[in-house]
Amino acid sequence: MRNLPIGVFDSGIGGLTVVKSILKELPKESIIYLGDTARVPYGTRDNDTIKKFSVELTKFMINKNVKAIVVACNTMSAVALDEIRRTAGKIPVIDVITPTIEEAIRLKGTSVLGVIGTRATAHSRAFQAQIARHGKHYKVIQTACPLFVPLVEEGLVNGKVTELVAKDYLEEINKSNADVLILACTHYPMLSKVIRKVLRRTLKIIDCASPTAKYLKELLNDQNLLNLNKSSPELKFYVTDNPDRSFEIANIFFDGKFPGKIEKISL
Amino acid sequence: MRNLPIGVFDSGIGGLTVVKSILKELPKESIIYLGDTARVPYGTRDNDTIKKFSVELTKFMINKNVKAIVVACNTMSAVALDEIRRTAGKIPVIDVITPTIEEAIRLKGTSVLGVIGTRATAHSRAFQAQIARHGKHYKVIQTACPLFVPLVEEGLVNGKVTELVAKDYLEEINKSNADVLILACTHYPMLSKVIRKVLRRTLKIIDCASPTAKYLKELLNDQNLLNLNKSSPELKFYVTDNPDRSFEIANIFFDGKFPGKIEKISL
Repeated sequence: MRNLPIGVFDSGIGGLTVVKSILKELPKESIIYLGDTARVPYGTRDNDTIKKFSVELTKFMINKNVKAIVVACNTMSAVALDEIRRTAGKIPVIDVITPTIEEAIRLKGTSVLGVIGTRATAHSRAFQAQIARHGKHYKVIQTACPLFVPLVEEGLVNGKVTELVAKDYLEEINKSNADVLILACTHYPMLSKVIRKVLRRTLKIIDCASPTAKYLKELLNDQNLLNLNKSSPELKFYVTDNPDRSFEIANIFFDGKFPGKIEKISL
Repeated sequence: MRNLPIGVFDSGIGGLTVVKSILKELPKESIIYLGDTARVPYGTRDNDTIKKFSVELTKFMINKNVKAIVVACNTMSAVALDEIRRTAGKIPVIDVITPTIEEAIRLKGTSVLGVIGTRATAHSRAFQAQIARHGKHYKVIQTACPLFVPLVEEGLVNGKVTELVAKDYLEEINKSNADVLILACTHYPMLSKVIRKVLRRTLKIIDCASPTAKYLKELLNDQNLLNLNKSSPELKFYVTDNPDRSFEIANIFFDGKFPGKIEKISL
């Protein structure tokens, strides 16, 4: 059981930002990644479509015999977590929202939280609901940034257009009294340079990659699922479309050292 | 046979620009429209994925017993026309590329043709191949505009961001000696105000909606398929996701007079 891989999935290649953190936190673990690039983006779609697609990705991971599932996508975490857990049965499922909110709340001085994500994530009000559980004094300012995912999937992680889109999306949060900005989409860390450039300086940025990887480590440890084997772990990366461009963009994100190939599969 | 509907499909709601022209040209015809909004955009995906999706849309139309199929999508016309025709069997299939090129060539003084479309359309070189058949003296300057479809599907048909994206994409064509610009994507007419604003004034703009509708009329006439019935035609609009937002955007495009409802279906 301990030697089985961890399944990580996302609508596209954004979830690789989470994989990067998992590799750092849990270098002995085997990972199977699946990005549904044939149907990306998810965050602009209806909830029932997102749920249907999410269940298909979960079934893929069940067939791959994973020991845990990481939903490396805020949209699916916000909209389809119940369906994913129901499908996964006894396999533990980790979302990216819970660990990230906990991390943001732990930061000194957090009081007003800016949250940027997809339209589906914003519409779900999952962040508002979870943050409210930590206390009534927290305020949330949320903005949907529907073009950020297409920009990342296009490889436009910097440049004039991306900067202007970012400036436009972040205007409200920049003008607010938010003290932390949550990148509530696993694609957004790929835009972090641009976001930092146009963001008010006093705003701290948090993304879900590192908090989720740490949370996963704790869970595997608690459930005696950590891989103790000394043999080298296996990393498998699958997408449903565009393996070559996916690799190119992933490689930029991994500073030219992407740790595997990307294969195309059909769901 | 004459009373059967015409099937029109697209990856999203862009194909409604073609429907608008068909309604004008052929007001007696019943139309079934299908936009695959659960998987839009197509133009950023691999050819085999586009072919697979196109065949599914074609089968939907066959089941609806249509008398003709209009592929209201340049990406599918450029990449998957053979597969669509093979699937459609005896049902005549019209693409949007052939009529549009003929229209552009007919314009007085056309010599250098600017073509903007999706990445898949650009990559197929379908426009270059077809234009070359009209004579060796024609020159084609083609640019892929992968963010235009997400912008339209988001309803961002005007505004600062769209204008800046358009300016960036059209820079090369603006600087060239092109005398006509073909909007080689059925989504792009929805951006025509912005495109006109940033485009060099001397460039004429052609889109595929009107040429395709006229071509369809000729074909139906030639094959004795025109509806001669005087009863009012039926218009059915289907999408695979986001029926409400699809309706909103469609309604803007039809100046508040969208001629029907939009229903959601599963493929």
